[in-house]
Amino acid sequence: MGQLRIALAQTNPVVGDFAANTAKLIEWSRRAASQGAHLAVFTEMFLTGYPVEDLVLRASFVEASIAALESAATELAEAGLGSLPVVVGYVDRAGLAPRVGQPKGAPLDAVALLHEGRVVTRSAKHHLPNYGVFDEYRYFVRGDRLPIFRLHGVDVAIAVCEDLWQQGGPVSVVGQAGAGLLVVPNASPYEREKDDVRLELCAERAREAGCALVYCNAVGGQDELVFDGDSIVVSATGDLVARAGQFQEELLVVDLDLPEGTAEPGQTPFDAGDGSMITVDRFVLTSEPVPAYTPDPPAIAPRMDDIGEVYAALVLGVRDYVAKNGFESVILGLSGGIDSALTATIASDAIGPSRVNVILMPSRYSSDHSITDAEELVRRQGVTSQIVPVGDIVEAFEKEISISGLAAENLQARVRGMLLMSLSNQHGHLVLTTGNKSELATGYSTLYGDSAGGYAPIKDVLKTMVWELSRWRNSNSYDWFMLDAAEPIPANSITKEPSAELRPDQRDTDSLPPYEILDRLLDDYVEKDMGSAELIAAGHDPALVARVIRLVDIAEYKRRQYPPGPKITPKNFGRDRRLPITNRWRETL
Amino acid sequence: MGQLRIALAQTNPVVGDFAANTAKLIEWSRRAASQGAHLAVFTEMFLTGYPVEDLVLRASFVEASIAALESAATELAEAGLGSLPVVVGYVDRAGLAPRVGQPKGAPLDAVALLHEGRVVTRSAKHHLPNYGVFDEYRYFVRGDRLPIFRLHGVDVAIAVCEDLWQQGGPVSVVGQAGAGLLVVPNASPYEREKDDVRLELCAERAREAGCALVYCNAVGGQDELVFDGDSIVVSATGDLVARAGQFQEELLVVDLDLPEGTAEPGQTPFDAGDGSMITVDRFVLTSEPVPAYTPDPPAIAPRMDDIGEVYAALVLGVRDYVAKNGFESVILGLSGGIDSALTATIASDAIGPSRVNVILMPSRYSSDHSITDAEELVRRQGVTSQIVPVGDIVEAFEKEISISGLAAENLQARVRGMLLMSLSNQHGHLVLTTGNKSELATGYSTLYGDSAGGYAPIKDVLKTMVWELSRWRNSNSYDWFMLDAAEPIPANSITKEPSAELRPDQRDTDSLPPYEILDRLLDDYVEKDMGSAELIAAGHDPALVARVIRLVDIAEYKRRQYPPGPKITPKNFGRDRRLPITNRWRETL
Repeated sequence: MGQLRIALAQTNPVVGDFAANTAKLIEWSRRAASQGAHLAVFTEMFLTGYPVEDLVLRASFVEASIAALESAATELAEAGLGSLPVVVGYVDRAGLAPRVGQPKGAPLDAVALLHEGRVVTRSAKHHLPNYGVFDEYRYFVRGDRLPIFRLHGVDVAIAVCEDLWQQGGPVSVVGQAGAGLLVVPNASPYEREKDDVRLELCAERAREAGCALVYCNAVGGQDELVFDGDSIVVSATGDLVARAGQFQEELLVVDLDLPEGTAEPGQTPFDAGDGSMITVDRFVLTSEPVPAYTPDPPAIAPRMDDIGEVYAALVLGVRDYVAKNGFESVILGLSGGIDSALTATIASDAIGPSRVNVILMPSRYSSDHSITDAEELVRRQGVTSQIVPVGDIVEAFEKEISISGLAAENLQARVRGMLLMSLSNQHGHLVLTTGNKSELATGYSTLYGDSAGGYAPIKDVLKTMVWELSRWRNSNSYDWFMLDAAEPIPANSITKEPSAELRPDQRDTDSLPPYEILDRLLDDYVEKDMGSAELIAAGHDPALVARVIRLVDIAEYKRRQYPPGPKITPKNFGRDRRLPITNRWRETL
Repeated sequence: MGQLRIALAQTNPVVGDFAANTAKLIEWSRRAASQGAHLAVFTEMFLTGYPVEDLVLRASFVEASIAALESAATELAEAGLGSLPVVVGYVDRAGLAPRVGQPKGAPLDAVALLHEGRVVTRSAKHHLPNYGVFDEYRYFVRGDRLPIFRLHGVDVAIAVCEDLWQQGGPVSVVGQAGAGLLVVPNASPYEREKDDVRLELCAERAREAGCALVYCNAVGGQDELVFDGDSIVVSATGDLVARAGQFQEELLVVDLDLPEGTAEPGQTPFDAGDGSMITVDRFVLTSEPVPAYTPDPPAIAPRMDDIGEVYAALVLGVRDYVAKNGFESVILGLSGGIDSALTATIASDAIGPSRVNVILMPSRYSSDHSITDAEELVRRQGVTSQIVPVGDIVEAFEKEISISGLAAENLQARVRGMLLMSLSNQHGHLVLTTGNKSELATGYSTLYGDSAGGYAPIKDVLKTMVWELSRWRNSNSYDWFMLDAAEPIPANSITKEPSAELRPDQRDTDSLPPYEILDRLLDDYVEKDMGSAELIAAGHDPALVARVIRLVDIAEYKRRQYPPGPKITPKNFGRDRRLPITNRWRETL
């Protein structure tokens, strides 16, 4: 057996910021070297950030990526880190002749090995995900090479992210060709309960490949995606060896005992078991085994609980959207209700309460507690607040045009949206939108009113979970939250009955079923794509099924106009669920 | 040789409306039969409408599609049309075991032959487009069957849409297997100058297949897509035989002399030339040749000119978005400027001026001509108008919050947007957004202000083309336009200098370069994806390149929030161009 110390750089790159990402590559490689690592593994498309979407179809972007890779190899050597082999993801191109149906420029979701100032080898992701939030047939052509390099006597193979998720391909080939270790850079976004799936997957693929597996995942927010880290190392038998924390950058260093390789260098084609061939490219980087040393005990970070994990994802999503888009502060309307209270708390945890601005915008229909509950939150958290009554502005509108009913209700919401946008434009704050997923699903919101803004922290959170998260936050915290306050959310905001307060004595239940019933139905219809017959068979009330499906289907346009927000479920009403606006199909007809 | 009379049903289905689409299938089949057709060909996914996006991933939707097909076969027979063979597109499923990476339910972009009350054969599109506006790897699995049925002695093969555009596959197999005619149902959206490309493509594929080719395309608007019809029949030598009109439903009936088939029935696998196999399934529907008859002279509809074609696409896009979404009327703000004047005119042509409502919303910065030019348009077109001054409302806002500069300019635009939305909510009008592509590209608009609304007729039209279209419309018309007015657009709206009129003496050129220069640069950067080096090499001013690239890149979020509008170029800022919001990449850095 040979020994290797592997450093997994669970890092947070910025899309398109080649300079910053390269600087981070150098810094983290230095940290890995200083801890005696024999190999540093970065994440999928680390140098470009992920996902870059249509940027990859621009020749200039791909050229910049390749140039950044080559420059990174040189810079590592110049920084005295040339002897540390570094595996890092970037974008390359396949050099194929153009044809209809092939992405322009034939880009590759590529990975390279850097060593001694050189790019030693390049390969690319073989399996391209094209479901959920992924559109990789639009962007990439398949990789068909599998590098296996000998490092201190151990054969190390490289695959990329989705190569683990689909049958056949690189993992199957590693199993046939033989290797001592499979390293896999990833950019796998968070979704509830996905960490359990990932561990099982890594264990299964390690057994299939017949070797230990290093799964290094990205961390950080990118528009609607939140990468959760949760990097994993498993043994050849599929046992968990080490695990990094969730939602934080971390250098996970692990010592492994691995079998020494014996196969000859050279190129060999293998049947990938998916209708394609993959060429294994074996070569020797260093053959001398590492002198025996005493391994450090492996780190296995504890798992967050289910609700804490969701809360952490929302905080990181907001923090990175603000920082990566160059905002210094946020602004939101605080109504005294639970949605805006939770949104304000997430914002305070993400960027600190001193950078959170809340506006209280009472109207003629606001209850007394709407102001007192909001003011109590301001007091507890120390955010900056301002009161702007909307009554005179609403009256000014009503003097010019004659409106009533829903149009008049919407007007109040829109005046509030406009006030927030005006203050945003004046002071440069990012507007946070406070709607939850139950509202968004049923269209219980006002276009350009409460739905206005730049980022919507709880758009993927059903109302019942809004309450769960609020209770969780009042009794829990993580050390990387920036708000230090006991019970930051006033209890009355959590317990009172929900109301939009757009007309006298309005209650959400005037328009919607109780949230406990609604949310279960939405979960089955939206996340699970059940048809009406299935929904009724699952025990939902038939009349309610018909009513809710209709509400959900006709609200498609409103959802399209909604800001992005962190994804925590299979269908966050973002790119993971794409429906026509013009659509006469109704499950219930 | 054998004779066949083929009816191409160039029709306009509605997404998800199985009942309406089936009724239209019966009606148009009856028309085809009454004209003595031996075969009726409908368009791709006619029974479901196209595209249906994520609906196809719902089991209940696919089941409804299959049920609609089977019911259509029965209904045709019950209507006495059973003896007319009908080729029609729908959605089916492949019956494959689920696996990661395969669309849920393994749907097929399918086509069937209906005859004598039965579904005689089913096949599916082989080549799946996954570029531009298309995401078909997300939705479909590949078809691998090619039916060739003998009809009155002539062998007729069926392929679908993209099968023509990519190398290899069904066309190649028809060439190897031999057939007398290839019929191809399509749903191919309009783009400028695409009709010339299509004719060349059909000619090339007919020569490759070695037989005549019937290209039957859909017509109508579906969200951002406009299908233009333009169905084509070419001979085996690639010569144009018949052509339907653009942007209108039409039953194109054509008589063809075609070789009689001699091959034996049965199933034969062929190498498709693209790494896959396709099984040809030959069978006999009717072997008796048609008694000789005198063919009718073929119809070749004249082409619209380039600008007229664009204008027609915009009119059809608006007409169908209104009708298919159940609106009765539209509303828009009329400023006296050219953008809103053109938008109003398109709306009048689409749904008739009596259903078009315009609101004049003068502010303290409005020029005199802004009102007089708008009133002149109202007079010429007979649309319904109302004047709502915004000054008092703006003042009511300014009493509550202190804003200035750009925030104050935006406020005026937002007050107008809110007035339109309020009147829309009150009366049920669809709000038309009047911004053009030059503004949208550079972010020269106000979020929730002039960008508010439900459909944006000229969002894909650069400012210079806004003027071209206006001049064209003042001297041209088509018989299916619903506005009958000489020079519907006041000349002053066309000739005056553009201004947003949000501060004293404002001109667009205060913020933007002259549109003649800007639009050429936008075309190269946006449509052609040129990098900054290429742009400079193409003759654009380097400082302007840097400035405009920056403007375009940072306006991504605004564009995401913009309503859909008819697509006329490769990149309409809709699903054909997908960029991250969080993006630090700048071409010019």
